[in-house]
Amino acid sequence: EHIPYRLKKYTEKETFRRAVEFYRMMDERRTVRHFSDDAVPLGVVQTLIKTAGTSPSGAHTQPWTYVVVQDFNLKCQIRKIVEEEEEINYRKRMSATWVKDLEKLRTTWERNVLDVAPYLIMVFKQAYGVGPNGERINHYYSEISISISVGILLAAIQNAGLVTVTSTPLNAGPALRTLLARPVNEKLLLLLPIGYPAHNATVPDLQRRDIKDNHGSDVM
Amino acid sequence: EHIPYRLKKYTEKETFRRAVEFYRMMDERRTVRHFSDDAVPLGVVQTLIKTAGTSPSGAHTQPWTYVVVQDFNLKCQIRKIVEEEEEINYRKRMSATWVKDLEKLRTTWERNVLDVAPYLIMVFKQAYGVGPNGERINHYYSEISISISVGILLAAIQNAGLVTVTSTPLNAGPALRTLLARPVNEKLLLLLPIGYPAHNATVPDLQRRDIKDNHGSDVM
Ligand SMILES: Cc1cc2nc3c(=O)[nH]c(=O)nc-3n(C[C@H](O)[C@H](O)[C@H](O)COP(=O)(O)O)c2cc1C
Ligand SMILES: Cc1cc2nc3c(=O)[nH]c(=O)nc-3n(C[C@H](O)[C@H](O)[C@H](O)COP(=O)(O)O)c2cc1C
Repeated sequence: EHIPYRLKKYTEKETFRRAVEFYRMMDERRTVRHFSDDAVPLGVVQTLIKTAGTSPSGAHTQPWTYVVVQDFNLKCQIRKIVEEEEEINYRKRMSATWVKDLEKLRTTWERNVLDVAPYLIMVFKQAYGVGPNGERINHYYSEISISISVGILLAAIQNAGLVTVTSTPLNAGPALRTLLARPVNEKLLLLLPIGYPAHNATVPDLQRRDIKDNHGSDVM
Repeated sequence: EHIPYRLKKYTEKETFRRAVEFYRMMDERRTVRHFSDDAVPLGVVQTLIKTAGTSPSGAHTQPWTYVVVQDFNLKCQIRKIVEEEEEINYRKRMSATWVKDLEKLRTTWERNVLDVAPYLIMVFKQAYGVGPNGERINHYYSEISISISVGILLAAIQNAGLVTVTSTPLNAGPALRTLLARPVNEKLLLLLPIGYPAHNATVPDLQRRDIKDNHGSDVM
């Protein structure tokens, strides 16, 4: 059961133009930590998640579960759990260097984003799959596959004119899994609030590494 | 040094349209294992890699190095190393279930793709960074960050009408690192041949999980 694969081939000029245009769009992406509470239609968010679901995955295991939280009370509870854990992370669990490395980003454990953004996308990793008869399905390279799928999600979010914060809610996973009543094979990997930037949003003035200064500079 | 962040806001209708269009484009993505040797301009590949470089990364560490291989002899040597290791992987290192799970994909260790595709993109993970004075820079969540960047790369590849195979060259990393003379802090994470599909390319007839059947179905 192999089927033919066809893909539209663009002219060389068109290929260049498309590549550059997509680069420019993605280059405008920033992690935005100030959200507006402007509504976003649920159907848009679901389409973005469907897009993430087109990702490749090791042996086609599709080891991700995307849960969308829109309920305000639930968002408040999530915020409380994340903030409590983050406070302990910053005060005790993270190394002094790590905390210092993060200073320039002003990412402290106060996450008011979490109840302002219209949705929180919770990305769970399925440590293993469960087949139709309850049998375990092995997952290979699941963190890589899920993160690739999140990369595709970020491109879809940017393309839709929305913003997010890619975040790893260190140690808050178990409490959030319980709160959202997820099955035992699921572990929280990433948490992405999604919405529009606040009208007065700011971002740290970071520079990206130049292509000559590492990515792809080395052509052999 | 925080700076204002502005992003074009689309109307609701336009947002929907963009989200659906991007979904349709990404839904056409497949892992293609039959390449044409049609040339692709190097500048296009470099633009795609620059796009990958717009990815977020833990504490802005940008822990990836993208190396592009176009030299035919080098591609043949890479193929030889990967095939030798893959043969051992399939025969000895991988579990019987794993080999069985891969059967439907017909991914054996014969990788003639590797010298037919015009380029091989080698994605290295920087286990740690090296600062201007030779000091070590810690990297956090580097595999997640790099894989997110690869997800953005895959979107850029699809948008340009090109194809790839996302692959993890199990155990071939050290020999390839040596062949490409990469520094000791770099480990090979993924290998992506890039080019146009062969005119008679086929893909396994796989289905993607429906959104209702897990991703994002759970709206809370
Ligand atoms: C982390 C990862 C590793 C993979 N490794 C290989 C590989 O070594 N060889 C291969 O042919 N395909 C590999 N694939 C591709 C998957 O088999 C493929 O994505 C999956 O079967 C779904 O098919 P699709 O990408 O066409 O949707 C890998 C994919 C991922 C995400
Ligand atoms: C795996 C990962 C984890 C991250 N964790 C956090 C986080 O917990 N809190 C936060 O504010 N930003 C987090 N970020 C965002 C980074 O700080 C951000 O991507 C980086 O500073 C570069 O800025 P940019 O995304 O605006 O280009 C994370 C990013 C990645 C990829």
